[in-house]
Amino acid sequence: MAEQKKQSVLFQHGTLSLLVPGLFEGTMTVGELLQHGNYGIGTVQDFNGELVVLDGHAYQVVESGAVNELTADQSVPFASVHFDDPIAQTELANLNKAEVERYLLQNYPYRNVFFAVKIVGEFAQMHTRVVEEQQKPYPSLTEATKTQPKFNQDNIHGTLIGYYAPELFQGVAVGGYHVHFLSDDHKTIGGHILDYRLKKGQVSIQPFATLEQHFPLENQDFLQQNFNYDGMSQSIDQAEK
Amino acid sequence: MAEQKKQSVLFQHGTLSLLVPGLFEGTMTVGELLQHGNYGIGTVQDFNGELVVLDGHAYQVVESGAVNELTADQSVPFASVHFDDPIAQTELANLNKAEVERYLLQNYPYRNVFFAVKIVGEFAQMHTRVVEEQQKPYPSLTEATKTQPKFNQDNIHGTLIGYYAPELFQGVAVGGYHVHFLSDDHKTIGGHILDYRLKKGQVSIQPFATLEQHFPLENQDFLQQNFNYDGMSQSIDQAEK
Repeated sequence: MAEQKKQSVLFQHGTLSLLVPGLFEGTMTVGELLQHGNYGIGTVQDFNGELVVLDGHAYQVVESGAVNELTADQSVPFASVHFDDPIAQTELANLNKAEVERYLLQNYPYRNVFFAVKIVGEFAQMHTRVVEEQQKPYPSLTEATKTQPKFNQDNIHGTLIGYYAPELFQGVAVGGYHVHFLSDDHKTIGGHILDYRLKKGQVSIQPFATLEQHFPLENQDFLQQNFNYDGMSQSIDQAEK
Repeated sequence: MAEQKKQSVLFQHGTLSLLVPGLFEGTMTVGELLQHGNYGIGTVQDFNGELVVLDGHAYQVVESGAVNELTADQSVPFASVHFDDPIAQTELANLNKAEVERYLLQNYPYRNVFFAVKIVGEFAQMHTRVVEEQQKPYPSLTEATKTQPKFNQDNIHGTLIGYYAPELFQGVAVGGYHVHFLSDDHKTIGGHILDYRLKKGQVSIQPFATLEQHFPLENQDFLQQNFNYDGMSQSIDQAEK
């Protein structure tokens, strides 16, 4: 990185596409992941829930809705993290997910790069889902996400964290927005956000000059996988959006 | 990078996709590029020829076939470099481009990651092309590559350098192989390789755990470009293969 501020780097371990055929094995420890950032999202070993990294702590929201803090020796197949240092903050109120996302693309010139979005505030409505733990032999992403517990909560304080990726990177990451949530009490509600209505919150944005894309180069299942990219974008949209 | 050897990093400035609408402005100096690697490929400011980085020197093969060494203050819109440190070397003989490329994928387990390929040796036949310098307002990649000077040379000693990218990254880079050549005398022939027959050479391979993808975050033309990803893969295949 040398001359480059680490705040301008988005670190990603694994790619979204490796989840498609069911490569759910953890291939990086949480301890190592947190060396690359203190905020972020992802999933956990065995596809066991939604990862939400806040202020250097890695939380796992599991299918029951319970929230655990992960330990350094647990591992992840796919996660993205960065060091939080927003370039701009703005207070927004009474907007839903689509409206916030449109606002950011219209008011900041970052549609062709990766950027982080963070919202700290009160949500009038929060709607999430959580993926279910899988066992070997792992099924495909489509199979694994056929049933997904969903959660709703009104009037909840918490933090939304996630990323926007240029469409060019669909399959590497989720093209467009991909955001997770955790309530302030680390208990009431969390997970992969399906929709929300923001009552009032601080919305911040952090563009990245660099995507540091890290591959599980030592994982034999990954190296040997015969990926089929036809229809991958559709599988991803079905499972992730 | 912290714990990671820099030899396991492929650095890329810009994406192949930004060339498609004609973003040929140089957005990183050669001096800065060479801080990220001593071998690599790319193109030059104004799409002015083929970039071949060998042993820390950046050579430009221009449309006349002439070869210049670039200075640190010249710039590039798109380039990939790495620090040469192969994990394996093998001597191969009497194979054409397709045969060498198949050999590497069959004998090393790296089809799902980026890797560098380098061949130092004698080529019974070398066939290259060189893109032509463009002027503002820049045309599209398809327009810019309608005419491309081609070069042939038999029995030539030189270095092939380039990369394999997983198909998932088509558009970020060239999916599959993308290799350039420069003759040992830095004069007889160079450029983007269309085909060759290797007489005998040392073939080396270097897989990367990390793709460090750097975007021209300060370039307004890039930020404002309305990319159309439909048909992009076809434009790239037409121009680059």
